[in-house]
Amino acid sequence: MHRYVVHELLTDACYQHESRKIISGNTLYTYGTIYKRVIRLADRLTRLGITRGTVVGVMDVNSHRYFELKYALSMVGAVIHTINFRLSPTDILFTIRDAQDEWVFLWEGFGPLAANLAVSLPRHVWMGNTAHDKEAPDYETLIAEGRERVPDISGKISPTDAYSIFYTTGTTGKPKGLRYTHQQMLMGALQIAHHLALFDTGATISTQDVIMPLIPFFHIHGWGIPFIAPYLGASLVLPESGGPAEQIRWIREHHVTWSNMVPTQLFMLIEEAKKQKTDRLILKILTGGSPLSLGLAKQADRLGISYSLIYGGSDQLGSAITTATQSQDSGHLEQLRSRLTPFPLARIETRADSLEPLPPDGHSLGELWVQSPWLPEGYLNDPGKTQMAFDGGWFRSGDLAVRYPDGTFSVADRMKDAIKSGGEWILGSTIESVLSEIPGVRAAAVIALADDKWGERPMAVVETQGELTPAILYQALNQAVQEGRLAKFWIPDTIRFIDSMPMTSAGKIDKKALREGI
Amino acid sequence: MHRYVVHELLTDACYQHESRKIISGNTLYTYGTIYKRVIRLADRLTRLGITRGTVVGVMDVNSHRYFELKYALSMVGAVIHTINFRLSPTDILFTIRDAQDEWVFLWEGFGPLAANLAVSLPRHVWMGNTAHDKEAPDYETLIAEGRERVPDISGKISPTDAYSIFYTTGTTGKPKGLRYTHQQMLMGALQIAHHLALFDTGATISTQDVIMPLIPFFHIHGWGIPFIAPYLGASLVLPESGGPAEQIRWIREHHVTWSNMVPTQLFMLIEEAKKQKTDRLILKILTGGSPLSLGLAKQADRLGISYSLIYGGSDQLGSAITTATQSQDSGHLEQLRSRLTPFPLARIETRADSLEPLPPDGHSLGELWVQSPWLPEGYLNDPGKTQMAFDGGWFRSGDLAVRYPDGTFSVADRMKDAIKSGGEWILGSTIESVLSEIPGVRAAAVIALADDKWGERPMAVVETQGELTPAILYQALNQAVQEGRLAKFWIPDTIRFIDSMPMTSAGKIDKKALREGI
Repeated sequence: MHRYVVHELLTDACYQHESRKIISGNTLYTYGTIYKRVIRLADRLTRLGITRGTVVGVMDVNSHRYFELKYALSMVGAVIHTINFRLSPTDILFTIRDAQDEWVFLWEGFGPLAANLAVSLPRHVWMGNTAHDKEAPDYETLIAEGRERVPDISGKISPTDAYSIFYTTGTTGKPKGLRYTHQQMLMGALQIAHHLALFDTGATISTQDVIMPLIPFFHIHGWGIPFIAPYLGASLVLPESGGPAEQIRWIREHHVTWSNMVPTQLFMLIEEAKKQKTDRLILKILTGGSPLSLGLAKQADRLGISYSLIYGGSDQLGSAITTATQSQDSGHLEQLRSRLTPFPLARIETRADSLEPLPPDGHSLGELWVQSPWLPEGYLNDPGKTQMAFDGGWFRSGDLAVRYPDGTFSVADRMKDAIKSGGEWILGSTIESVLSEIPGVRAAAVIALADDKWGERPMAVVETQGELTPAILYQALNQAVQEGRLAKFWIPDTIRFIDSMPMTSAGKIDKKALREGI
Repeated sequence: MHRYVVHELLTDACYQHESRKIISGNTLYTYGTIYKRVIRLADRLTRLGITRGTVVGVMDVNSHRYFELKYALSMVGAVIHTINFRLSPTDILFTIRDAQDEWVFLWEGFGPLAANLAVSLPRHVWMGNTAHDKEAPDYETLIAEGRERVPDISGKISPTDAYSIFYTTGTTGKPKGLRYTHQQMLMGALQIAHHLALFDTGATISTQDVIMPLIPFFHIHGWGIPFIAPYLGASLVLPESGGPAEQIRWIREHHVTWSNMVPTQLFMLIEEAKKQKTDRLILKILTGGSPLSLGLAKQADRLGISYSLIYGGSDQLGSAITTATQSQDSGHLEQLRSRLTPFPLARIETRADSLEPLPPDGHSLGELWVQSPWLPEGYLNDPGKTQMAFDGGWFRSGDLAVRYPDGTFSVADRMKDAIKSGGEWILGSTIESVLSEIPGVRAAAVIALADDKWGERPMAVVETQGELTPAILYQALNQAVQEGRLAKFWIPDTIRFIDSMPMTSAGKIDKKALREGI
């Protein structure tokens, strides 16, 4: 019986695309060889007592091991907790306890972080090349000990069974847990592929692509790529812990055609390409997580990288991707940077403070509310925060957005990052975009300063290279006012120069740290 | 709450593509105006006592009324029985009783057929422009009487609720009923759109297309188009009862870019185009239901019509669509005529008489077995036939097929239409294809004649125009043997000329009638 559950995708891929490649680090696998490892592993897991409903944490980089565990755990009905290793050790332990992990699979490459963590874990498995710990089982040994037969329980897993738990990486408070069923996880992931194929995006994806996911698998399963690749039968290149130099080498060696990454990773990739004096880097990428500045977009375009942005998050999965259509007035590059089209089956609204829906008029700014069949029930063990964010079947995103008459929308800013000056919204992101285009600006952030007269006023924080004076920055801001990109009252009262921009574990600028540092 | 149920698609389309057109006959609607009619109708239906689980028959051509009922009935949780009006009146009544229809919506355009049927129906609604029957309610009056509010029950319909019942149009025995849930119906339909977008097919579909479905809505909901169009936000042209001349006029007037039809409809459309001396008819079509002969494929290609074939049926929904890929050795036109790629999430096998899976070697012929998450439980009220066709989560298609190393497969023939001569399969369809390419052959069918020596031997039946002798036909068959397309022993022992080929209600050649007529 073919059910809409995660492990059926790998069975399909093994059946239909057995010899397509999966490259992990320096090792070559195929869907066929990985499938055999997965069923051996699944068989061995059942003998560890891991079964339907058991929560199992995994802490690893984007490797074949992580890929295998996503399927082997599905096959025995276990729930995979994708541990965010960029959190602080305290928060990592908090998520392991909050999710009630009964087992944790640890990659030894994390060194002391993993070793210290292991001390606090009752049951864990080491993944890596050296026997790390005599008492804990070793990943490859488990696979070697497994029998090559699909566990009986795999046919009994239902689309509405829980499949995965993961945590938001918000910059305030404790991480918030979300639990998704097989059906929700698959729909949310596969709608990404369907949207990219059905609409005119910069990151078209097909069965012929060679995909290298750079979004860590702990972030919403690398935006669904471990499910999308077998679904399409596309080849997969798993970068493990490789940095930008290795990424460029792999793109060349393995003919990678498609990748995903946050803008910060794109920035680093482009910097590395420049360093290597690379003229062309033909690649389709899906980016998102934070806005793509026009400056970075232009650099990518010059190199041959085409892009689209995805809008979503741990608490809603994906909801929209940028498209370019003839009905839109702005240029192609600008559309693919900002004009989001909802996924088929996702529905969005913008609402005023009164909660009344706002018209799609291209200028009314309001909070973005999202609906889709893959929305979760709410936050794990947190009815209070659930009640604040999940309302009558809708998810309140906390993002400020504007809807256009052609059905697209743009996200302007996080509500808590926007600045309300004299009762009017000032969008820090727009100011950041103008600043980022100035040669020599490496990163720019705009935050709110409390102001007796106006309520709030914007302050810019910039990380620069070379000689840049406040006068040059103000000149660019004034020019943007003349071009109609900024209102005059949006110009920051203060510009602060900083050596190194603080970042969150998700690779976004940590505005909370900036605010606290004032 | 956005659930994976049929009526949410129309709500999405109204929200996202409110002003996109739906043209039915000579009337212009939009997703916005249709949505308002649908909620009025749904409101009024609840006051007729039509609610969750009520089975409602609909007998209509492809009109806005049929489209509206597909959504209004979903909204109140009723189960739509799509009545096949091409069945005999006896069989129509059989299906109405077998499905346990409590109400039937009848289009008055069917004339005496509908009037006679109405006599046997306790509760029915007339659809059309004239008040037909004082005692039965009238469709437009119901809509006028409805309130413009979504029924409360619409939010309680679950993806696993039954959505639709329809019947196979097999050429033997009574029609067999199938019941599909919302989830099965939507997955089966939307995977068609996803396949067309993800693979290299001749019938790519997108949000920009203007779609005119020519497959009757009683056939698996017109192969899912009433769901696919709102899902994409594509404009819809509903031909009602228009024939080939009107179809060509609508293609021109409404800029239709995409259609679906069986090969017989394509043949009629091309004949009409020739009659009108049309040089070009740019159109993407999805065809299927019976093989597309190479002769017809070439004619379509010359006119500008690009095509793919879909493989499926009432008892499995869609499972595969033809694709053209570089790895395939045959020409583009031939690939799109025959080389099927399974839908993502569908899995196929070919099996020997021993039920052992056959290798994908490009020549082993065996029965095609199909699996997918949208397979039904079995036949309605018929455990015996269910047991024969649905086996361990697989559907036994009764089709003979061959699998290729590149993951594609070709359907050779219905097992019951193939001929076993001296223990070897002879594929009537291949012989039919050779015959159909001969100028002057309008239709060709090959059936089995009992033979004392060989078990079975092939006989060809041809419908011709102009002067065609058996000698000309045998000459072409012998040439095909020289070209390696036929084995020598495949050449029919007998060729019979016929005035007019008998057809089934599904527009296929009625081989049962041919066999009986021998």
